[in-house]
Amino acid sequence: MTLTEAEALDAADPLREFRDRFALPEGVIYLDGNSLGALPHSTPARLQAVATGEWGEGLIRSWNAHDWIGAARRVGAKIAPFIGARPHEVVVADSTSANLYKLLVAALKARPERKTILSEPGNFPTDLYMADGAAWSVGDARVRTVPAADIVEAIDDDVAVVLLTHVHYKSGAMLDMGRITAAAQAKGALILWDLSHSVGAVPVDLNGCNADLAVGCGYKYLNGGPGAPAFLYVAERHQGTLRSPLSGWMGHAAPFDFGDDYAPAEDISRFQCGTPSILAMAALEEGNAQFDGVDRAALFAKSRALGDACIALVEAHCPDLTLISPRDATRRGSHVSFRHPDAYAICQALIDRGVIGDFRAPDALRLGFAPLYIGFADLWRAVDILRQVLADGSWDDPKYHARNAVT
Amino acid sequence: MTLTEAEALDAADPLREFRDRFALPEGVIYLDGNSLGALPHSTPARLQAVATGEWGEGLIRSWNAHDWIGAARRVGAKIAPFIGARPHEVVVADSTSANLYKLLVAALKARPERKTILSEPGNFPTDLYMADGAAWSVGDARVRTVPAADIVEAIDDDVAVVLLTHVHYKSGAMLDMGRITAAAQAKGALILWDLSHSVGAVPVDLNGCNADLAVGCGYKYLNGGPGAPAFLYVAERHQGTLRSPLSGWMGHAAPFDFGDDYAPAEDISRFQCGTPSILAMAALEEGNAQFDGVDRAALFAKSRALGDACIALVEAHCPDLTLISPRDATRRGSHVSFRHPDAYAICQALIDRGVIGDFRAPDALRLGFAPLYIGFADLWRAVDILRQVLADGSWDDPKYHARNAVT
Repeated sequence: MTLTEAEALDAADPLREFRDRFALPEGVIYLDGNSLGALPHSTPARLQAVATGEWGEGLIRSWNAHDWIGAARRVGAKIAPFIGARPHEVVVADSTSANLYKLLVAALKARPERKTILSEPGNFPTDLYMADGAAWSVGDARVRTVPAADIVEAIDDDVAVVLLTHVHYKSGAMLDMGRITAAAQAKGALILWDLSHSVGAVPVDLNGCNADLAVGCGYKYLNGGPGAPAFLYVAERHQGTLRSPLSGWMGHAAPFDFGDDYAPAEDISRFQCGTPSILAMAALEEGNAQFDGVDRAALFAKSRALGDACIALVEAHCPDLTLISPRDATRRGSHVSFRHPDAYAICQALIDRGVIGDFRAPDALRLGFAPLYIGFADLWRAVDILRQVLADGSWDDPKYHARNAVT
Repeated sequence: MTLTEAEALDAADPLREFRDRFALPEGVIYLDGNSLGALPHSTPARLQAVATGEWGEGLIRSWNAHDWIGAARRVGAKIAPFIGARPHEVVVADSTSANLYKLLVAALKARPERKTILSEPGNFPTDLYMADGAAWSVGDARVRTVPAADIVEAIDDDVAVVLLTHVHYKSGAMLDMGRITAAAQAKGALILWDLSHSVGAVPVDLNGCNADLAVGCGYKYLNGGPGAPAFLYVAERHQGTLRSPLSGWMGHAAPFDFGDDYAPAEDISRFQCGTPSILAMAALEEGNAQFDGVDRAALFAKSRALGDACIALVEAHCPDLTLISPRDATRRGSHVSFRHPDAYAICQALIDRGVIGDFRAPDALRLGFAPLYIGFADLWRAVDILRQVLADGSWDDPKYHARNAVT
């Protein structure tokens, strides 16, 4: 692919006008929207309206007048179409980590005769850490990990819940949600999908797969801002029986009766915990609204095409990099990773030249394509800079080897 | 007290200029800063800077460049002086509810031979609900409540942790932190204080009382905005041994090594969980900064004087209201509550006339005085309107009896 060909693809892109909704800095090619989504142009104004109007003028009255109390359900319902859920099956609350914990403990308690959380080694760390914390909290449970390829046959009668990330944060490999969900349920286990690297970038059909539980992140493809609130999904059939260990007042059946006894809401609201940040919730709602009018099939097709083009360009021009991600776009998320022993320094050198991807320990350079605002010419230019950095060895500078707090 | 006398007190108030830091709406007397602190004038600009500069321009680089990664510890350290803690003993994370859970489960696990969380009936609901959830999660623990007056003698060898709110959300009654802490520790129990209605309004000396654990709210007197992140305190001596059940990656010793095994940070950072909202964190930091330059002794003295004046005025002019709160200002927080069978409707009628207090089920009218921005003339005018509403019966209108979602 030449730059001219890349520009022709952008010109023919049915999503090309969506890019204008985002504040992308001059001189930057942003290939990290899978880690932190870009700022929508409309978000600062929304934050001003919430801060000065709803909070400053409305004060406490805005819990009713501006439906702050309904925000968790309202924003959840807007995320639902991206994941094949019904509006009343999704709620926004807390962090992905906390939501994982809620659902893991709920699952262990719902299957008391089973003691295992089954996951894969190399899953996103917080998934494994929260599983560890959930098992430790409950006291007589454990976490077992087996490679994703062996998961289905590893599900035995001791598995209460299978915890997997749909699109792997490092490799970009996408698991077969339908097959694994069915296998887990056939063995009497529940399935919990982490959709953090999926939602807004690849097709997800929780209802179609009959999935039990899911969580996901608001600050990646949903553009909700750094540390945006997360969401969780509980299939309608489980809402009345699964209990959240984080039984806070926002999940109570009647929070403003101020009674002493905990009685969970009958519906998805029971998975709320404390009072949510209304500023953060508004930014997430605004981020999610950037998808209004998008053709979702075109979005997902573009994501796959960008990944294919990235692999082709890097393999053609950067022979020192080894592909980690699946070559088959239908088995891949919207990011592609390559192995190099000095991936960290190469990533820093790229950032210094305006190409923002990221490093994932120990040796992965990860390039992500948020299909709403990244085009083929962006990608072409980014790989061209990567080619130069590798060819002239300019990445091998002490300043690029010095580690930051956040890598 | 006459209006002229009230105005004289305001003129002599050493804190009078702090009021100008807040965006208080025209025509409103805001006596609910104990529920949701007012908007600081500087907060919208701070949010803009974080959104457009740090997020929009800096993108993922701001985790290092703008120290997003350090925000939880940095803001925690700024809250520490208000509660008699050392900077490394406080961290901002999650909600008050989630923080209660972390510390309750940590305490139960640290005292495995003890099975009781001891609290008081009528504690703020989420405290009791989270205690219920913590006991349920651990599996062989229970919550026991006895009236605060009987707490000390109720602490027996089965109590793992005593959970109390320092200033009661409804009555405003302040418990004796030193005495109860010592009593709990004498029986081998840990003490967990909820400071939500204390921090920024009344003196708190956790270190001076040798307190073990505490949590508190960011959106009341700290002015962090609706649903602001909360904080938690763990005495230095416990930081290496207590484990958080919400063992998310932000509390890991090396989160960016992306290892599979959970290893908690050695310090207070282990009580972080998932990625915090940076927008919400910035608003909290800005809210807290409004106290810069304040004479804390003068602040607390003003809080007590406002409460005393409120009781005197209401008892002089509103005989239908019965005081719920302690008359002794040294045993009271910065709000005062009165009982009336129609407190809900009276509260709504007041709001309609620009006096914002709040109702707490079943029959309390609560008036709060954020001493940074509420003055004696505000109070005088508010009670004068209350007097009129009661005297002319105008509160008894169907429109004031209709319940809102949030009361």
